[in-house]
Amino acid sequence: MSEVTEKRRLTSNFAELSRSECEKLLAEHSVGRVGLSAPTGPQILPVTYAYYGQTVVFRTSPYGVLSSLERHTRVAFEIDDIDEERKSGWSVLVLGSAERVTQQYTLSTLWKEGPVPWASGTRNLFIAITPDSITGRSVRAPFAD
Amino acid sequence: MSEVTEKRRLTSNFAELSRSECEKLLAEHSVGRVGLSAPTGPQILPVTYAYYGQTVVFRTSPYGVLSSLERHTRVAFEIDDIDEERKSGWSVLVLGSAERVTQQYTLSTLWKEGPVPWASGTRNLFIAITPDSITGRSVRAPFAD
Repeated sequence: MSEVTEKRRLTSNFAELSRSECEKLLAEHSVGRVGLSAPTGPQILPVTYAYYGQTVVFRTSPYGVLSSLERHTRVAFEIDDIDEERKSGWSVLVLGSAERVTQQYTLSTLWKEGPVPWASGTRNLFIAITPDSITGRSVRAPFAD
Repeated sequence: MSEVTEKRRLTSNFAELSRSECEKLLAEHSVGRVGLSAPTGPQILPVTYAYYGQTVVFRTSPYGVLSSLERHTRVAFEIDDIDEERKSGWSVLVLGSAERVTQQYTLSTLWKEGPVPWASGTRNLFIAITPDSITGRSVRAPFAD
């Protein structure tokens, strides 16, 4: 489905976020979800991330599910903040390609300023998602309390 | 990666949730995220859902991305509540198969008691995800404020 078709179907309850609003939200937050197609089917895994140089960067273990992303792989990355009670909130979806960060200069910076994983253990694999598209929307239910 | 391997890697910051804890969280909440492999790559889409008869049910439009799930399709479904400031929270991941709900009795009940989509417009397609696995974990960062 093209982005245009998707936009057309936004109803009065949904408002589209601009690219700069989406990027602002990506920069302000630090927890998101990576969606990937594993051999056994789709997966969604929460990660801590940093929005660095217009890429979404996270650290992972070389032994886990996410390590499969070190080779150029299509992924989805989503952040949101939705209030179930108030039926309102927003979500941002990044579609793009994940790949291992190998450039030495970038790695040095990321070790110092990049995402800090909450899990302990070896998490020395930096994965960067380069966006093909960044879209977002805010939602407000018609029957909000 | 097998579930067992994944469990082994839980660190002191992560605790596994039991199946019944996961099901309780699924029943208590109403917003989650569906992960699917679209022809263009992985997607993550927020939905309002109900946990009904040990399936995750949501309503969608017959014209949107999620309508592709009406035929038996492998999906991921995730809910979480993670506090970025306190670096703590939990997540539950359902892996399973999505399929259109066609049974008349079930549909009648779902129209009355099922998930209420926030979007207006035609959302008369009920999709049920039958879990193959339900796993969850809580997280508490070692350096929580």
